[in-house]
Amino acid sequence: MGSLSVSANSSMAAERVVVISGKEVQRPVEILSATNDEFDFVTVEMKEKMDPKIFASSLRDSVSHWRQQGMKAVWLKLPIDLVNLVPAAVDEGFSYHHAEPDYLMLACWLSKTKQVLPSYATNRVHIGAFVMNDKREVLVVKESRGMFKRMDLWKFPTGFAEDGEDISEAAKREVKEETGIDSEFVEILAFGHRHKQFHGKSNLFFVCMLRPLSFDIQMEESALKEPELEEAMWMPLEEFGAQPLVKELEVLNYMYAICKAKVDEGYSGFSRLPVSRFLDDVRESSFYFNAKDMKSKSLGKDFAEYFAFAKDFPKGVVKFGAKDFAKSLAKSFLKSFPVASTFPCSVSLSILAIFLYCNWYQSL
Amino acid sequence: MGSLSVSANSSMAAERVVVISGKEVQRPVEILSATNDEFDFVTVEMKEKMDPKIFASSLRDSVSHWRQQGMKAVWLKLPIDLVNLVPAAVDEGFSYHHAEPDYLMLACWLSKTKQVLPSYATNRVHIGAFVMNDKREVLVVKESRGMFKRMDLWKFPTGFAEDGEDISEAAKREVKEETGIDSEFVEILAFGHRHKQFHGKSNLFFVCMLRPLSFDIQMEESALKEPELEEAMWMPLEEFGAQPLVKELEVLNYMYAICKAKVDEGYSGFSRLPVSRFLDDVRESSFYFNAKDMKSKSLGKDFAEYFAFAKDFPKGVVKFGAKDFAKSLAKSFLKSFPVASTFPCSVSLSILAIFLYCNWYQSL
Repeated sequence: MGSLSVSANSSMAAERVVVISGKEVQRPVEILSATNDEFDFVTVEMKEKMDPKIFASSLRDSVSHWRQQGMKAVWLKLPIDLVNLVPAAVDEGFSYHHAEPDYLMLACWLSKTKQVLPSYATNRVHIGAFVMNDKREVLVVKESRGMFKRMDLWKFPTGFAEDGEDISEAAKREVKEETGIDSEFVEILAFGHRHKQFHGKSNLFFVCMLRPLSFDIQMEESALKEPELEEAMWMPLEEFGAQPLVKELEVLNYMYAICKAKVDEGYSGFSRLPVSRFLDDVRESSFYFNAKDMKSKSLGKDFAEYFAFAKDFPKGVVKFGAKDFAKSLAKSFLKSFPVASTFPCSVSLSILAIFLYCNWYQSL
Repeated sequence: MGSLSVSANSSMAAERVVVISGKEVQRPVEILSATNDEFDFVTVEMKEKMDPKIFASSLRDSVSHWRQQGMKAVWLKLPIDLVNLVPAAVDEGFSYHHAEPDYLMLACWLSKTKQVLPSYATNRVHIGAFVMNDKREVLVVKESRGMFKRMDLWKFPTGFAEDGEDISEAAKREVKEETGIDSEFVEILAFGHRHKQFHGKSNLFFVCMLRPLSFDIQMEESALKEPELEEAMWMPLEEFGAQPLVKELEVLNYMYAICKAKVDEGYSGFSRLPVSRFLDDVRESSFYFNAKDMKSKSLGKDFAEYFAFAKDFPKGVVKFGAKDFAKSLAKSFLKSFPVASTFPCSVSLSILAIFLYCNWYQSL
């Protein structure tokens, strides 16, 4: 054990007396190489193998050095092939912060103030995909095991977003993996926030509307990637809603009602605006909001394209053309003002004629 | 080292010959105590201290036993005080799955099929709180360091949701911690999804609207909990929007426009419906959706309370009474049908008179 050999991960700082094999020897104090950030956090990223005892001694010296310098905390990243250094770090007062398959991140709070280490991810993103074709049929799947199998439920394709995956991308990928159907993202209709789920973390479940770009269901792909799935099919929307479980379970009931409101009543969810520069970074990200309500000019930008996209979904089924607009206006007029139905017929007809004339004019 | 002592975490299954201190001895094969689930995953939760070598040997025997049984994967949970068992687990083929300050979860995939271990949390939930008082002033804070300090930005109170915390709760808590203001949750106006952030994970940033319940800013509380904050104040909405950074940065610009549209143009975000039974569990969770667009009876439930709550915000500023409704209807009518503006004045006045009459009738 050569405590005098300087490791690739350490740098000499001072000397002190240590006892090695029963003898007092002068040896350099090895401060581990590290980087500091503007929050006075020190980060050590170990890459080379090191004897655990030398590591323990260096870490002790380093921590005491950084504490003297007024640093607030130390991050210690250990790749899995340096697993033999983990016990030493814990002995020196480090606790776990997070782990990925190939590394473990430990942390040690040095400051006397309240511990404010930034938390790691706390939520999983789960998506459910509402995909409807021109025949008013929704894409549904059946699981081969689990609660929904027992309850005989045909459900929307669902799945978890992968690391770094956008909600819109996750929805398209899951639909493709589970059914072989290609699709494009339309809107987020609603979402649920559930707590104390897998290992105590929370789930955000986004109900996404997608427009199908292909229609032939291919379960072979699914069988490889999602062996928990049994079948997939296109099912009439109302038949989906008539399933006992959809009627019984509050949230399934809401989801169905929202999907139906989207199709029949012009419900507006959140559209996606791709953003290439968010705040301080230039990675592609998304901004989701009610584009229908932002069609005004307050942004100096026209969101008509998003609005039209969401409103025309699915093509041929919910096409709000000029006629539908006049119809829905007349309908909501009569609904809001029941007195109108007591108007003499001639008055009602005049009003409708004006609406229709304006509407015809607009459609030119 | 007593390899014959049966640990609290193991159970005897068979015998085999092993070499201990140079001697061949017959010893029981110790299968670690474990539980199985319906996905054929085995879970071992170690609680008692154990000699690392005995643990390594038991783990090897156990894994081979479970593999023979056709189990798909093994979860191994090691509390931090059993850190000395971690290297043995990695040697036996386990990799890290996730870690919390007090434990490390390892996993080993046994099946020959594609590895499908469920992923851990992948997203952090970040909130920004839009809090406006009756004088049309928004609650803003200034950071004492970082990008926004350098750019001299007065920003919304922001912060990360804690483990298991709902978006709505996180928003209220952050406003309280940063400024001392009590508030109630109104709506989620929009959200951003950003990727490759802290340690490569994603951030969901929710713009939440809150109604203030108190108005005196107390920075003392903030100083303790959020030492990165310098000042807080109520600032006129338009002054907030006129800040150079809000105009320059695309997303800050959208956020401001959406807040303004909410206040001035009836923009509708997602309201929160508390749900006590989500799907299979009974923990309190949330369902967020466009309650304004769901005021129809399609759910057999009246969302008027949510709608009214969001619509009247903030009290006295955006009160859509009967008059505003008639005004906005007339406005949207003239906007949709420009030809109406060419009508003889008498025709226009008649139409408006009918609208106003109906409206008056409705408001009775």
